[in-house]
Amino acid sequence: MGEDELIQTTFAPLASGFAGALGLTDDCAFLTPPAGEDLVLTTDAVAAGVHFFPEDAPADIAWKALAVNVSDLAAKGARPIAYLLSIAFPELPERAWLAAFARGLGEAQAAFGIALAGGDTDRRPGPLTATVTAIGSVPSGRMVRRGSAKAGDLLFLSGTLGDSAVGLLLRQDPERRVSLGLDMREAAMLVGRYLRPEPRVALAPHLLAHASAAMDVSDGLVKDCARLARASGLAASLDCVRLPLSQPLLSALARQPDLIATALTGGDDYEVLAAVSPGEASAFQAAAQACGVPVSEIGQLSAGTGISVLGADGQPMSFTRPGWDHFPH
Amino acid sequence: MGEDELIQTTFAPLASGFAGALGLTDDCAFLTPPAGEDLVLTTDAVAAGVHFFPEDAPADIAWKALAVNVSDLAAKGARPIAYLLSIAFPELPERAWLAAFARGLGEAQAAFGIALAGGDTDRRPGPLTATVTAIGSVPSGRMVRRGSAKAGDLLFLSGTLGDSAVGLLLRQDPERRVSLGLDMREAAMLVGRYLRPEPRVALAPHLLAHASAAMDVSDGLVKDCARLARASGLAASLDCVRLPLSQPLLSALARQPDLIATALTGGDDYEVLAAVSPGEASAFQAAAQACGVPVSEIGQLSAGTGISVLGADGQPMSFTRPGWDHFPH
Repeated sequence: MGEDELIQTTFAPLASGFAGALGLTDDCAFLTPPAGEDLVLTTDAVAAGVHFFPEDAPADIAWKALAVNVSDLAAKGARPIAYLLSIAFPELPERAWLAAFARGLGEAQAAFGIALAGGDTDRRPGPLTATVTAIGSVPSGRMVRRGSAKAGDLLFLSGTLGDSAVGLLLRQDPERRVSLGLDMREAAMLVGRYLRPEPRVALAPHLLAHASAAMDVSDGLVKDCARLARASGLAASLDCVRLPLSQPLLSALARQPDLIATALTGGDDYEVLAAVSPGEASAFQAAAQACGVPVSEIGQLSAGTGISVLGADGQPMSFTRPGWDHFPH
Repeated sequence: MGEDELIQTTFAPLASGFAGALGLTDDCAFLTPPAGEDLVLTTDAVAAGVHFFPEDAPADIAWKALAVNVSDLAAKGARPIAYLLSIAFPELPERAWLAAFARGLGEAQAAFGIALAGGDTDRRPGPLTATVTAIGSVPSGRMVRRGSAKAGDLLFLSGTLGDSAVGLLLRQDPERRVSLGLDMREAAMLVGRYLRPEPRVALAPHLLAHASAAMDVSDGLVKDCARLARASGLAASLDCVRLPLSQPLLSALARQPDLIATALTGGDDYEVLAAVSPGEASAFQAAAQACGVPVSEIGQLSAGTGISVLGADGQPMSFTRPGWDHFPH
């Protein structure tokens, strides 16, 4: 199977819903922008051994590659439109692997409402890597920024925190399930949250309507919340007892309370952190609940700098590592 | 230097000309599309050991990463607007390396008229890799396709063919300069064409005005011309004696005539192959000459399938490998 055949058999069917992809037979795709809208652009790569395990199911790898990008769009209030995929294989995988990868992409496309517009296929040494550039749109001038929060805004988090970080621990060492007191179903739920993050696409229009600032949480809540506060020129305070935690995570925390630090800093949550003025808070919460992506108030922003996290014991928490950094100091 | 500092010191200055990049302080960029235009999208990665040498000058690596993408835009008639850069380092490079890389990107941006909109910075094992997604625009519905050529169209090639493929041979083995009878200046010109391809941005409006189909030549003229013919449902014939060849390449061919196959199939040309109806040919040639990117008539398209290349001896040529394939059969 040569490069052209690989593209036509594996990827072209995923582009059939997007006219500008021209069936992946051209060098570029075209996109007719929706009238009165700005396009929203983001790119993120996932690599074997860094963002996923080489032996992960190919459909899960594909899902994650797309999900982490669509998560950025959703947090900016954007509706997904199309994406480009640049994929590098150390060796050409088996046809069955490629078919499963394409199936995972197709499932993610259908779930997120996005289509393949184009891409690039390479063979090179090193880990299998999938780099996605995702494109969405918002009404002109309305992208929800990171740095536009106001003092007094309340901080909301979608979904639940820390499932993925603890899921990764279980993915690395399934034996931990027993010491954490989790049954098979609970452990599978946490691992599933690591393998298949759910970008909060349904929340996007409500962020546009109610949030003064937002970003997705991918590098750890403490680090990402500090970034939002810093970009807005404010201080953030988070309250541990208000964090939304899933039942499996609560079970694990009962056995191992220090996992709360993992939940706060582990990353891979792909939940939305939003700053919302007090006057918009109840409308935002109601809209989020109605669209199936409940949000929880977890803290607030005030004049100043830095971030403080109040522990369950009422004392400020400190962290050796606030979140993920590809280039640690 | 952490990830945020790396982004702010190395890359943010390159995004200062693009308002929607928000100084690379947000998770996404926004782009207000030009009214009445379609966006044109492409993505291509360059990796150490595959597309460039790990010891190449960082400014040249940066230039090439952007140039190979802008070349696709130009061949589609598009005006460059913005790009996203996803870069993966096996280890964080020295500050001087990063500064030189950023300088090369800046030079390329200025030369091509494009700005940095966003990106992603990773550390992972494997070769240093830079994946660019480039965005340009054309008047609505006007992207120059690969598959829209007509029987009877003449084939034109911009610039000169094969310089980069022979430049790569010289880059791999500088001693070949002597056996090819090249002086230092000639060899440097050929190597320079490999290191710093020149996307034909100035030709784009004239492709829009005159070409019925076009693509850039990156995987070898024979292979890429066969792709254009196949996408258009036509047969292509190329005439070796009409190929535009630089003085250094002619010198090398005089010593080693079989380098013509390298020129025809080696790739990395980043020239534009255009199909132009006979009635538009002289206007296209004049406009190309006037904008500083001369084009040469090298063959034509007719009813049928396949590609034939007439050698300098008047006999059809055959090739063991028509061009570059990342997944050879």
